[in-house]
Amino acid sequence: MDTLDLLATRVPNHALPRGFYNDADIFADDLREIWYREWLFAIPACEVPTAGSFVTMQVGDYAVLIVRGADGKIRAFHNSCRHRGSRVCSAAKGNSPKLVCPYHQWTYELDGRLLYARDMGPDFKPSEHGLKSIACEDAGGMVFICLADDPPPFASFLETAQQYLGPQRLQDAKIAFESTIVESGNWKLVLENNRECYHCAGSHPELCRTYPDRPGFTSMDETGAIEPAVAAHWEKCEAAGMPSKFVIAPSQQWRFARIPLLGAGESYTMDGKAAVAAKRLSIAPFANAGSLLFFHFPNSWNHFLADHSVVFRVLPISPTETQVTTKWLVHKDAVEGVDYDLANLTRVWVATNDQDRQVVEENQRGINSPAFVPGPYSELQEDGVIQFVDWYCRTMRERLGGNTAMAAE
Amino acid sequence: MDTLDLLATRVPNHALPRGFYNDADIFADDLREIWYREWLFAIPACEVPTAGSFVTMQVGDYAVLIVRGADGKIRAFHNSCRHRGSRVCSAAKGNSPKLVCPYHQWTYELDGRLLYARDMGPDFKPSEHGLKSIACEDAGGMVFICLADDPPPFASFLETAQQYLGPQRLQDAKIAFESTIVESGNWKLVLENNRECYHCAGSHPELCRTYPDRPGFTSMDETGAIEPAVAAHWEKCEAAGMPSKFVIAPSQQWRFARIPLLGAGESYTMDGKAAVAAKRLSIAPFANAGSLLFFHFPNSWNHFLADHSVVFRVLPISPTETQVTTKWLVHKDAVEGVDYDLANLTRVWVATNDQDRQVVEENQRGINSPAFVPGPYSELQEDGVIQFVDWYCRTMRERLGGNTAMAAE
Amino acid sequence: MDTLDLLATRVPNHALPRGFYNDADIFADDLREIWYREWLFAIPACEVPTAGSFVTMQVGDYAVLIVRGADGKIRAFHNSCRHRGSRVCSAAKGNSPKLVCPYHQWTYELDGRLLYARDMGPDFKPSEHGLKSIACEDAGGMVFICLADDPPPFASFLETAQQYLGPQRLQDAKIAFESTIVESGNWKLVLENNRECYHCAGSHPELCRTYPDRPGFTSMDETGAIEPAVAAHWEKCEAAGMPSKFVIAPSQQWRFARIPLLGAGESYTMDGKAAVAAKRLSIAPFANAGSLLFFHFPNSWNHFLADHSVVFRVLPISPTETQVTTKWLVHKDAVEGVDYDLANLTRVWVATNDQDRQVVEENQRGINSPAFVPGPYSELQEDGVIQFVDWYCRTMRERLGGNTAMAAE
Repeated sequence: MDTLDLLATRVPNHALPRGFYNDADIFADDLREIWYREWLFAIPACEVPTAGSFVTMQVGDYAVLIVRGADGKIRAFHNSCRHRGSRVCSAAKGNSPKLVCPYHQWTYELDGRLLYARDMGPDFKPSEHGLKSIACEDAGGMVFICLADDPPPFASFLETAQQYLGPQRLQDAKIAFESTIVESGNWKLVLENNRECYHCAGSHPELCRTYPDRPGFTSMDETGAIEPAVAAHWEKCEAAGMPSKFVIAPSQQWRFARIPLLGAGESYTMDGKAAVAAKRLSIAPFANAGSLLFFHFPNSWNHFLADHSVVFRVLPISPTETQVTTKWLVHKDAVEGVDYDLANLTRVWVATNDQDRQVVEENQRGINSPAFVPGPYSELQEDGVIQFVDWYCRTMRERLGGNTAMAAE
Repeated sequence: MDTLDLLATRVPNHALPRGFYNDADIFADDLREIWYREWLFAIPACEVPTAGSFVTMQVGDYAVLIVRGADGKIRAFHNSCRHRGSRVCSAAKGNSPKLVCPYHQWTYELDGRLLYARDMGPDFKPSEHGLKSIACEDAGGMVFICLADDPPPFASFLETAQQYLGPQRLQDAKIAFESTIVESGNWKLVLENNRECYHCAGSHPELCRTYPDRPGFTSMDETGAIEPAVAAHWEKCEAAGMPSKFVIAPSQQWRFARIPLLGAGESYTMDGKAAVAAKRLSIAPFANAGSLLFFHFPNSWNHFLADHSVVFRVLPISPTETQVTTKWLVHKDAVEGVDYDLANLTRVWVATNDQDRQVVEENQRGINSPAFVPGPYSELQEDGVIQFVDWYCRTMRERLGGNTAMAAE
Repeated sequence: MDTLDLLATRVPNHALPRGFYNDADIFADDLREIWYREWLFAIPACEVPTAGSFVTMQVGDYAVLIVRGADGKIRAFHNSCRHRGSRVCSAAKGNSPKLVCPYHQWTYELDGRLLYARDMGPDFKPSEHGLKSIACEDAGGMVFICLADDPPPFASFLETAQQYLGPQRLQDAKIAFESTIVESGNWKLVLENNRECYHCAGSHPELCRTYPDRPGFTSMDETGAIEPAVAAHWEKCEAAGMPSKFVIAPSQQWRFARIPLLGAGESYTMDGKAAVAAKRLSIAPFANAGSLLFFHFPNSWNHFLADHSVVFRVLPISPTETQVTTKWLVHKDAVEGVDYDLANLTRVWVATNDQDRQVVEENQRGINSPAFVPGPYSELQEDGVIQFVDWYCRTMRERLGGNTAMAAE
């Protein structure tokens, strides 16, 4: 069945029809229309701290190279030599003064220009054989890329991100720990799972020590009533110079909002105390600044705390496999074993990620059944899921040439 | 090539054309027309002994849940939550007073009714969100399911099964051991291999100690001559209350028949003596009642002995992968290490299964060659294979809308 | 996109368009038009030394059996029993007086005739059920097969091979060591990599101790200037009875040519000394006869040295997986540990193969990117690659029915 035809069968506020979660053709459409056209979170900027620092990543079929230039600017390139196509950098990350292809040593500058290619003859023009560039922006310390030749508008997001993330001081961060897991589930199930806490009480004992799973607490809208505790928290944090109020894109593709943690919680730890006591990453003048929540569809959710930050990146592997990379950021001067205990810092989200993997995988297995009938979302508990799925459907309809009016919604 | 067109090229009494053993489209047809429409052996009823006992299984894309209700009835359901589709039970087997989805704790009664779903709002109707049921019948202690909305007639089989299996007392059984292996071969090769003993002498030294591989011994037909030894055995067993005579469905889809074992053999053991001496599972008043053979296409063959039973279940995984599950049933009061030695009980069929796996896998490898030409079956030795392949061809032709007259046969 | 249409987009002297390296349909075309129609190097004849010696191999979907008959002749058969299709021989190699199918013991003579089949009835004709034969030729000790019913002309090659390989005395060889690796790259990338030494200095420190990577040294053409050192080497070797001069097929599908090794190098060892000092495999009256190079598209390159030989066989597994088998041949009377040290004999090419695997795999990863643009080959350094790719394109165009005029070239 055609993707657009199947989209038309979706019942509002219900899960998507089965094919959206396991069909190879629809997955190809997802790659082409979403993953190869939208801005994607790539890495925290601190991961390429100096000139020549690079990181490689894979987005669907695309091999991507992100590198900081001699001028300090972060750029992205297609990681494919202009000679015979070999990946130029094969390591997950590293540092190199030039970008030298391992196959025949064609040598590129950090800005992508071809500097040297042996024995190519007199007619060869190096200037026509530089690395092909990819759109790349630093959004307050979060590096985004877009594989499209003509990326969607990004200025408004960049401005908001700068404003909200500035006080989180990501430019002073280092990666204390990172984990990459592959969940045997469609990428949309990974996102859907993240966008609700209806499952939290049953799945996440560690997270629920500090994270408030009451829907009214995290599912604020601009006109709706805010819980007094949240409103007071916003006021206190904004007075300290930290933008905190709920802000969402008109397209609902991204959102920033700060929440207080449960009780006097300072951080996502088992006892709720800050994981990094002495050298906070953010400017917060108090430890219990809560968590600045930030999601950006299709591939990122994040938690920026007073003491540290946790950033998440989602990448699709196949119709039923999704990679989730998590990075714990602390102040670059914080010393492991002195300023923070690594197990204490990472325990809650390592456990939560694994629990989420399990529920996503069981969700996928059940959906694979031809007997699956998309059920209703709880409008109270799963409004964030509806928001994501609606964004997905709207975007796919527009891209695939369907009517965008959507009378049914 | 179209499945129906390829079927038309089959030479009678010859193996099927190559595509039937490795083509993805024909495998999809097999699933849709055979596996999703026929009655399939699922589990022995004793595997769900009490209210809340459940077993999960996978039939092609379908996730299936079999559970015994508070009323003692065994039911089957699609194992997919009516909320977002997660499998409700993920364990291979277990016992639970209610069926609680691990994702958001939607809670179902053992009869499938939805009992509880949190925060679904006032318009939500639990009665419309019960687990979807699957046809399920207990055939004398052997549980069969059918995924079709309109299952084929089953009453005649049920009656015969009750009659033949009653004296085997499967309701008093427990599983002493089970094994699941995956054979790298098409499911039809697994069935073909089972339906002849032309290969036994060359492959199965353990089995051939007690199992008679002479074709006239096991390939009885209702009108043909029966070996005197077999006729005498039937008479003796029937006099003891155990139906034994050869009976086959008009469609040849299933058959019951009892055979004596070689010599004074009592059971499938290395020395031919009963594996469970004191507490026989069946009502047989003598140890050497032989084996009541029972097959049911497309997915089961079985041996019911005086002392114990061995049941086999076949499930297709891919065009060239098939799962075979074997369960050894003994009387529930028999104690391992006291009444039977587990290694002695299982040795013959564990070895035989592995030997069959090897020949099936080599068969598949050779058939994968484009040079493969379907060869002639031995009508003396492989009449059971012809019976199975003819049943398959006839069923597929009918389902795919071809002419059922089959002049060539 | 159609293979022929995509071929038409190729820019001369540039890498192939992306689909040729990873598309499943083009890989199917490669199998059908190249691998199932061309002569392929199978094994060195010494691998089946006596009557009943056999070797099995897999070419795409075809299972192949190579066996030496009672008459000393080497034959190839489809390794699929004419009964139900099982592979007749499952071992990688062995020796058997008859070919007995493991399934039902159908028994074939070494020349393929069916000798015995139990219980097949009076109408069964054994003479119609012999193993199906495959074209097979012994080219001076190198066994080639062709799966086509009507193989391409081979006589001219056979004559040249006999002449060049005779002095290498492969009939007196044994296999000292063999390795099989799977490279995660398209088979054409494996060939392209082999056909140039532009990458050698950067990848192969062990090989470069003795192998001259200067293009003028190995990329001789019949009219071009030959380096004096090479010309002198040819003269010296031919005077000793060893054909050495560059000879290439009009189709450029195969080539023989001898080269001197660097310095006083005798063999591919770390110190350049002969690996087998006392019992040379070839007739060379001096140790530094260099290497007789021999390639045959699509699946072999080889090095015949004074003391030993190394033969390479390439087989396609999938669009992005290729098997490479390397065999080190020494004189059959040479004794491991006495006449040669196995680690010393194999070290250079075991290392080189693994290095080539790495560059091929990175090449594949980069080409998989939709951003890949086929770049220009260095005409100085990569003329051998151009030769191979041109042969491939020409052959595919002819086979697929395209215009063979190729104005663009």
